[in-house]
Parts: sequence; structure tokens; C-alpha cells
Amino acid sequence: MACKTYLAQGIAQRFSDEVRADIASITATPSAPRPTLVAFLANTDPAARTYADWTAKACSDVGVHFDLRVVERTHLEDHIMDANKDPAVHGTMVYYPVFGAGQDQYLQNIVSPAKDVEGLCHTYRYNMYHNVRFLDPPTNAEKCIIPCTPLAVVKVLEHLHVYNPMLPYGGRLYGKTIAVVNRSEVVGRPLAALLANDGARVLSIDVGDVLEFHRGPGLQHQQHVVVETSLSAKDALKLADVVITGVPSPSYKAPVDVLKNGVVAINFSSEKNFDAPAIKQRASLYVPTVGKVTIAMLQRNLVRLYRYQMAKAAAAGQVQAKSE
Amino acid sequence: MACKTYLAQGIAQRFSDEVRADIASITATPSAPRPTLVAFLANTDPAARTYADWTAKACSDVGVHFDLRVVERTHLEDHIMDANKDPAVHGTMVYYPVFGAGQDQYLQNIVSPAKDVEGLCHTYRYNMYHNVRFLDPPTNAEKCIIPCTPLAVVKVLEHLHVYNPMLPYGGRLYGKTIAVVNRSEVVGRPLAALLANDGARVLSIDVGDVLEFHRGPGLQHQQHVVVETSLSAKDALKLADVVITGVPSPSYKAPVDVLKNGVVAINFSSEKNFDAPAIKQRASLYVPTVGKVTIAMLQRNLVRLYRYQMAKAAAAGQVQAKSE
Repeated sequence: MACKTYLAQGIAQRFSDEVRADIASITATPSAPRPTLVAFLANTDPAARTYADWTAKACSDVGVHFDLRVVERTHLEDHIMDANKDPAVHGTMVYYPVFGAGQDQYLQNIVSPAKDVEGLCHTYRYNMYHNVRFLDPPTNAEKCIIPCTPLAVVKVLEHLHVYNPMLPYGGRLYGKTIAVVNRSEVVGRPLAALLANDGARVLSIDVGDVLEFHRGPGLQHQQHVVVETSLSAKDALKLADVVITGVPSPSYKAPVDVLKNGVVAINFSSEKNFDAPAIKQRASLYVPTVGKVTIAMLQRNLVRLYRYQMAKAAAAGQVQAKSE
Repeated sequence: MACKTYLAQGIAQRFSDEVRADIASITATPSAPRPTLVAFLANTDPAARTYADWTAKACSDVGVHFDLRVVERTHLEDHIMDANKDPAVHGTMVYYPVFGAGQDQYLQNIVSPAKDVEGLCHTYRYNMYHNVRFLDPPTNAEKCIIPCTPLAVVKVLEHLHVYNPMLPYGGRLYGKTIAVVNRSEVVGRPLAALLANDGARVLSIDVGDVLEFHRGPGLQHQQHVVVETSLSAKDALKLADVVITGVPSPSYKAPVDVLKNGVVAINFSSEKNFDAPAIKQRASLYVPTVGKVTIAMLQRNLVRLYRYQMAKAAAAGQVQAKSE
């Protein structure tokens, strides 16, 4: 049996095409401003610079105005607050890490939910963990933003038909066991929650332990629950139909020999967490990176937030016009 | 010259006495509920249990109803949300670490500002960093809660007359250089900001670098600014009139030989960051721990939040009565 490898570029294509068409339709109205994404680069990490260059190219490709601002980290908070207030900025992102996990998480909460294309502020995190899909119930005109990398992995799983469209929406991973190797606040934990909210049994593997995220039997809960396990990382990996890795270390390699034959293997780390020849002997489907899908999700989130901002501005304009 | 050592217990006394008198006066009204602090213990760290025992004793001593709840960490978020809604709970705290820095910071944002005696939710952090003192401008009836350990260190510095009462309020550390060895989001960075907001030149020492926090010359800024330095940790320590350590490691010892003669030395780590015989040869004032002052601040914050809750409940009652 041959393993099929899918590259992020190909998976991202459909989303990029949608965004490009959306922006073409938006900017067909001459008075409509071009959707503008401001990205702050406040570290000297060459990987961040590379990612910024990719983002610039991908934005130019779909018609997003990408404005990279290189700033001092000690002024970053002020810059974010200025962007929050600037109506010419429709979305804001930051290349992390800047100071380190604690202060960076504080900065993520400085970004206004109205501009937060990365979906990392507390409002969006909370709503994602609680499976709250809209910002404005009961109107439900504004969907919550979902963090880009976890969302990208969901889109990859949909592309690979791991999400089974024969099952009802909201339960399309029912029956699947998925191991996620990483439990960071930025990707691993939100991803585990999203997949469990969609019906999977998720084994979330961290350095110290394995937690299980799932919905109740028969999916009777709307929201996932988390339980302790006594599984080792290796035992968890043995059980997995899908293995998703995100270990930010060049020395980590997933133990391919314990994985099921025909496993689906996805890596979202910028490091190669799978030994390519080995995983291709074991997996049925293999996605070595997701970065380009992540950028497509960033653009999709931007267009969404842009529309909400335009709708609010139009509503405010009407109120203004009526009161005159 | 002899070094004078001050113990936290003695410094805390005045604050405990104030809280005890406050609570006696509150509970003199028969219908007034006793201020109730719910503390969640969701880890198996013996240090957390010891600290909980101390808190229980200190609360019993001043008349706070202390309700220690031992819970599973996987249910902690739900428990916090229940306490947010329970009018019988006036303050909530958690013994951290539970999951690790990232998820713990998420949990800190789950605590309602109305119940957050630890002052760790984003609202209070943001206001502290921006030197915003009240929750409800321009009424200014509700003071913001300041995180307990940074606040305890401020009270220790006031006790030691490092805050100079001959200077105007808000600038009483003007002229002082203070080194803070720790830049965590929970203590080190907020402490640096508080001291800079009060006029000190603060050298914030972290593993990788030294940042300077200060207000503008002549204190013309209301809020501190942060600037990069090229100082080494040792160079920063040489400049300090006051050295405050908070390194959570038994192996770290501050390099006493580089400190100024007559330095003021304060340690807020649960580990002994100063070699006691050495620092007593060098310092003029030495405070080996601040834990008991921290607990007094916790109680003080509780009484404050209790008063705001009672005032709100009374106002809601009046509205209710009028509408009947």
C-alpha cells in the first residue's frame, strides 16, 4: 500500500481562491477600502521574517493589503492599541514569540476582538473552548474567529476526508481517535478542543501526561470534557487513527514504529516531527507541513472581520444620517 | 554597621489588624454575610498545601470565612465559573501552578473581576500596567485590585521607608534604583511596573536581558515606559539601591559581593535567594520572605471586593424596591 502525501500549498489553493474572489467582489465597489492586514514584527527570529515574507506574498496574491511593521518590542503594546483604533486597519497580527509565553499571552489580549485575525484573545479562546460559535447571539451574524493553525489543521482533516460528511455537522469526527502531540495554548490545546467538539476522542500528549478530550457517549454534550488518563505517550500513539504533531524541536521524531498501519499523519511544527521515509512506509495519508493553509485561514479571518467592520460602519452611518 | 532584618509577620501585623477591625465592623450588622474566600486546590504540590494551611489560619485569625475546595484540575474551570455566579462567594483564588503557565493564564482570565482577589485577570493587569487606578471612572468608587505579591512588596518598601513620604504621592520612589530579579507575568513584571509608576528607575533582570522601567525625567509621564539596556545582570545589581529577588530555584543565590554596601534586600521567592550571613554583612535592611504580607493583601483585596459587591446588591435592591 502506498502512502499519499498532500502538500499544504495544494490544500490551501481552494481557500486562497475563495478569498481572492471575495476580495475582488468587495473591491468592485469603488468606495470600499482594500482589506488591510497589519503584521507586527518585533523579534529578530529569522523564522518569523521568513513567515512574514510568505504572508506578504500570499496576501499580494489574493489582493489583501499587507502592511508589515517592524517595531521595537518595548513599543509593541502601544502599536497594537493604535491599530485597534485605526479604521484603516482591518486585522492585526504579531509574530510571536516576542517576550516569552507569559507576556506574549498578555499582548494577545491587547488585540481587539474586532481586529484579531489570529483568534488568540481571551474572548475567542473562551468561546472556542466552550463551543460558542457566534459573537452576537441570538442574532448570530458574527461568527467567532478560530485560531489560524488549529483551524488550518481542521481544514486539512476535512480535505483528507477524516471529517466524514456522511455524519451530521458538529459530529463528523465521531468514531475517530486522534493523538495531538503538543498542548500549547496557541495550537495544541485549542486543536484538541476543536476536534473533541466535533466528536473525536482526542489524546492530548504533553511532556508530563496524556489527557483525553471527548464529548459524552452518543455526543450528548455540546462541549467537550477533559479527563485524566494513565496512558503513556507511546500507548496513546498506538491507539490513534490520526497523529498530529507540533513539537517545536529539531530533535523530536514521532515513534513511527508504534503507529497503526494506515495512520493519517499531519505535522504542524516548523520542524520535521516525522522521519519522511519511515512515515511513508506506515501512513496512508501524510501532510508534512500546514503553514500555507494557516496563512489562508489568516486571510479568511481577515475578510470575515472586514465584513463585520464594514457592516458596523454602515449601521453607524445610517444612525448618523437619521439623526441629522 | 549592623543589618536590620524585618520579618513578614511583623510587617503584615498592621494590615491584618485593619482587616480584622473592618470585618468586625461589617459583621456587627446581623444581616451582613461574613466575607467568604473560596480557594481552589487542584494540584498536588506540597508547597501549595502549606500555603493553603497558612491562608486558612490567617483567615480564621481575622474573621474571613475561608473555604478550601480540593478539586480535579480538569473541572477547575467549571468550578471557577460556578463561584463567579455564586453570591455567597466574595472572592476566589487558585493555587497555581495547575497545568502550566499558558493554560493557567487562561484560567486567571476565567475569574470574574468582581471576585478576583489575586488581581490576575486581564482587566486588572491591563489597568495596573497603564496606571489606571479605578474600575469606574469618573465616579472612582471602585479601586482596581493589584496582584497580591507585587502589592505586598510595595507595602514592605513602604514599611522600610524606601517610599519617601516627603515626596508627593505617586512619585515617592523618585531617585531610587531598584533591581528586580524575576520578570514573570505574575510577580516580576507587574512589580517593575508598579515601582516605575511610583517613580523608581527599575532594572528588570531576566535570564536573557535587563530591561529598564521608568517614568520620564521629572516624572512627566503618568505611566512608565520600558527601554532595552545592554547591562548584564551583574552590572544592573551593582547600580541598585534596592534588590528584590524572586527566583524560584534553590540553586540561585544573588551575587552579594557586587551589591552596594547598605543595599536594601528583599526576597519574595519561596526559595532563599540570598545567603543569609553574606547579605547581613552587606545590606542595611533585609526582608527574607514576604508570604505573610501577601496573605494580608489577599484579605485586604477580599474586603474591598466584598464592599463593592454589597454596594451593588444594595443598589439593585433599591431599584427592585422602586419598581415594585
